[in-house]
Amino acid sequence: MTPAELEAFLEREFPQIYLDGRIWHVEETGPMRARMRLDYHPRNLRPGGTLSGPSMMTLADLALYVAVLAQIGPVPLAVTTSLSFNFLRKPAEAALLAECRLLKLGRRLAVGEVTVFSEGAADPVCHATGTYSIPDRRPDPSP
Amino acid sequence: MTPAELEAFLEREFPQIYLDGRIWHVEETGPMRARMRLDYHPRNLRPGGTLSGPSMMTLADLALYVAVLAQIGPVPLAVTTSLSFNFLRKPAEAALLAECRLLKLGRRLAVGEVTVFSEGAADPVCHATGTYSIPDRRPDPSP
Amino acid sequence: MTPAELEAFLEREFPQIYLDGRIWHVEETGPMRARMRLDYHPRNLRPGGTLSGPSMMTLADLALYVAVLAQIGPVPLAVTTSLSFNFLRKPAEAALLAECRLLKLGRRLAVGEVTVFSEGAADPVCHATGTYSIPDRRPDPSP
Amino acid sequence: MTPAELEAFLEREFPQIYLDGRIWHVEETGPMRARMRLDYHPRNLRPGGTLSGPSMMTLADLALYVAVLAQIGPVPLAVTTSLSFNFLRKPAEAALLAECRLLKLGRRLAVGEVTVFSEGAADPVCHATGTYSIPDRRPDPSP
Repeated sequence: MTPAELEAFLEREFPQIYLDGRIWHVEETGPMRARMRLDYHPRNLRPGGTLSGPSMMTLADLALYVAVLAQIGPVPLAVTTSLSFNFLRKPAEAALLAECRLLKLGRRLAVGEVTVFSEGAADPVCHATGTYSIPDRRPDPSP
Repeated sequence: MTPAELEAFLEREFPQIYLDGRIWHVEETGPMRARMRLDYHPRNLRPGGTLSGPSMMTLADLALYVAVLAQIGPVPLAVTTSLSFNFLRKPAEAALLAECRLLKLGRRLAVGEVTVFSEGAADPVCHATGTYSIPDRRPDPSP
Repeated sequence: MTPAELEAFLEREFPQIYLDGRIWHVEETGPMRARMRLDYHPRNLRPGGTLSGPSMMTLADLALYVAVLAQIGPVPLAVTTSLSFNFLRKPAEAALLAECRLLKLGRRLAVGEVTVFSEGAADPVCHATGTYSIPDRRPDPSP
Repeated sequence: MTPAELEAFLEREFPQIYLDGRIWHVEETGPMRARMRLDYHPRNLRPGGTLSGPSMMTLADLALYVAVLAQIGPVPLAVTTSLSFNFLRKPAEAALLAECRLLKLGRRLAVGEVTVFSEGAADPVCHATGTYSIPDRRPDPSP
């Protein structure tokens, strides 16, 4: 699936995440990877001019989901089974970018990692790993 | 801090989380524990009549924060350093309850676990563990 | 499976873990739970009179495996897919006890948590969560 | 610290990990990174010609520790506070290599990730993230 197809899929399946506007963007997909962006929105602001943990977590979750769908197509039954986050630095009052890399795409399970950055900054603000359970559909490509 | 003091603290420090109404409630606190509730809100609805992962994650994060504050008082500088989630079952279209238990409250680090339930259901929908970094303030009570 | 059956299964399938003697014990099993013990062994000693992280991790992993097998029977194909640990306090130079509770036993996935104690101490030294992938075998009992 | 200095430090501080021989090697260190190797040893063998989870976990833990020490020098008081693992594929009956990258080296906390490979294979067998608590020693370089 292309970035445009993925965004259309998200808007159709998850309209609630766009209640604050079109703030989620699939910027790029490639083999076993995806990049997403969350525009700055005042709802995510927290004391000290930083952004909320849940905004980073939601972005990382979506980036993993998009990276999986980019590989296997629009499978709405794929569900997140686990997510782990390390919060590294306070994000700036800016957009967030998430770089996702899949570590494994098996027959039943996908595993990936995500690094989240504040736009324009070099050091990551958050690192995540996650697993997805996917409906049986084809022989396992893993060794 | 009592539940009422904790809610007042959250409303003052984190007004953004109440943009959809007074949906977060500190139901109970005790030694090394706290219980929070997230009212049902259509924003958190997802396909198939279930609730979003981020709504469970946000609730668990808040429950850990509240359990720490209930012990150490209103310390706005306490920051989440890590969170890990296992998503166990699809939540119902209902309120979510989070039971938090602190496993350690050290001089610099607090660690806790949270079990999230759909209101009225016996089996948990999500389990979380998290760590908080807290400003130095007293001798470490840990062995 | 009973504790004795589980120990016999472990000794047959994983003889390498007994190279230092019969130091692993299944103390008790029950519905969705198990308790294991790791005897003190000098191999696990670390500077300052404490025990190694890997000895706690290995015990937690085994306790989860045993709790799953106690429910579903001797299925050698069940594999650990993820483990998360929080190290809470330095363990004493003593035996370690692990209390495991399964949070979910689904058709394809089991999830559990483990709390590890030094024998005779009240405060946990380590907390773990883990997931197991299990071969398809029966209808999913989860809602 | 250089790889040779790090190995000498490990052998002096943690002699127990060498009870099966000199099987742990610091292969390379660099800015915010380290690579370690665990030689194949029959103790770590498991049914089906694969290696144990704990051998991968121990290697990842050591690689993180070494990457931190390579940056801050021989600080025996640095302690692992959390570790999270995703097991991706069954390792081969071969040496294991661990590539560690630090994501943050703060005043009190270091965070890193580790990817573990079977020697000669391209796809990772395990991915880990971990956090270390380090004694206060200098101003926090994090933003």
